Amino acid sequence: MKGDLLYEGKAKKVFLVEGDSQALILSYKNDATAFNGKKKANFIGKGKYNNLITAKIFDYLHRKGIKTHFQKSLNDTEQLVTKTTIIPVEVVVRNVAAGSITKRLGIKEKTVFSPPLVELFYKNDDLSDPLINEEHARILTNVDPFEIEQIKEAARAINDLLLAFFQSVNLQLADFKLEFGKDAKGNLLLADEISPDTCRLWDMETGEKMDKDVFREDIGDLIETYDAILQRLEAVK
Amino acid sequence: MKGDLLYEGKAKKVFLVEGDSQALILSYKNDATAFNGKKKANFIGKGKYNNLITAKIFDYLHRKGIKTHFQKSLNDTEQLVTKTTIIPVEVVVRNVAAGSITKRLGIKEKTVFSPPLVELFYKNDDLSDPLINEEHARILTNVDPFEIEQIKEAARAINDLLLAFFQSVNLQLADFKLEFGKDAKGNLLLADEISPDTCRLWDMETGEKMDKDVFREDIGDLIETYDAILQRLEAVK
Repeated sequence: MKGDLLYEGKAKKVFLVEGDSQALILSYKNDATAFNGKKKANFIGKGKYNNLITAKIFDYLHRKGIKTHFQKSLNDTEQLVTKTTIIPVEVVVRNVAAGSITKRLGIKEKTVFSPPLVELFYKNDDLSDPLINEEHARILTNVDPFEIEQIKEAARAINDLLLAFFQSVNLQLADFKLEFGKDAKGNLLLADEISPDTCRLWDMETGEKMDKDVFREDIGDLIETYDAILQRLEAVK
Repeated sequence: MKGDLLYEGKAKKVFLVEGDSQALILSYKNDATAFNGKKKANFIGKGKYNNLITAKIFDYLHRKGIKTHFQKSLNDTEQLVTKTTIIPVEVVVRNVAAGSITKRLGIKEKTVFSPPLVELFYKNDDLSDPLINEEHARILTNVDPFEIEQIKEAARAINDLLLAFFQSVNLQLADFKLEFGKDAKGNLLLADEISPDTCRLWDMETGEKMDKDVFREDIGDLIETYDAILQRLEAVK
């Protein structure tokens, strides 16, 4: 079933699927990287948590009408997805200021963005994923202005859904990153992952950081934290 | 007539006007700075050229219907302008790729942008004037989304006018920077300067750089270059 390795990224390997040219298998790695790859580590079990948490979240979004690449989990670390051509733009939605934006723009941490702030970054390691505007996206990718607007609208809708989802398990969604791809028919699908690697999640009672900031800032045990997130999500009906 | 010094920037001093609370005097300095102030020099006569060139260009734009802060030249280095509250956003219009964008986004020098590319930067020396999007502009300044759209539209219209103006003196306008302000009644006015300090101008026959890149890249005599620009503009009827 699992075919050749197509691509290896920082957090996942992507495999072809024998007999199905329109599907891929994502295999979640135990590697953790931060600060554009400058900080690295390996956590046994991390791949499993991100695979299962992403599956939970994509399943929820699918039930709420969001078109995603996710088909099903295959095992603890692998999931079957619809093959897409990834648009090289990272879409970041911020409800509350945290991380890079506080230094980049001098915005005080925990400043509330109302409406939520949507940022686009050009997915390019050599350039350190620079911030771009919508006109840059048109120049640097093959998406047209209408599709960029569609992507931003989808990101806002996903934010509304995720805010409610995480709130139901007592987590505040400060910000998160999305990637989109186009399938063989040109449909825009939510792709990549949504996990504590790609979200900032704060316990609503204690304010405790329950995401990759634990690794970025060396303030806790990453595996215990990701396990706690999965347990909360598994309790959701 | 000239009142107290209100503010001193890198390239200009701003004075109050006695007896007219709605006017300011801009006094152009001979200082040249580049790379966010990291490279500095002083060129005797530079202030005069930028004052007189800005006056020529603002006069032209006024005749074409653009609302600007410019009232009149007072002498070689000073001009009278309408007092505005400057919006802390630098608006850059790019017709051809040059300078920072080539490194920031890996876009090859001289790539033509069609339509022209409009970028916004947050005017903040401590943050090195970072690129922002329209939502950041809304958060960081007191301008609303409609005004940001007005500013971008004005920048595109000014670009069309300046392209034609410079072409008439055999200069290609690669890119330029604008600043806008609001007068006491809240009217949006083009402010600051338009000069070889704030434009990239290339001789249409030789391709020679005839702007501050002469200083940035140490490739010629700045005063001779600015004098040549003024002479070409003074020949325009």
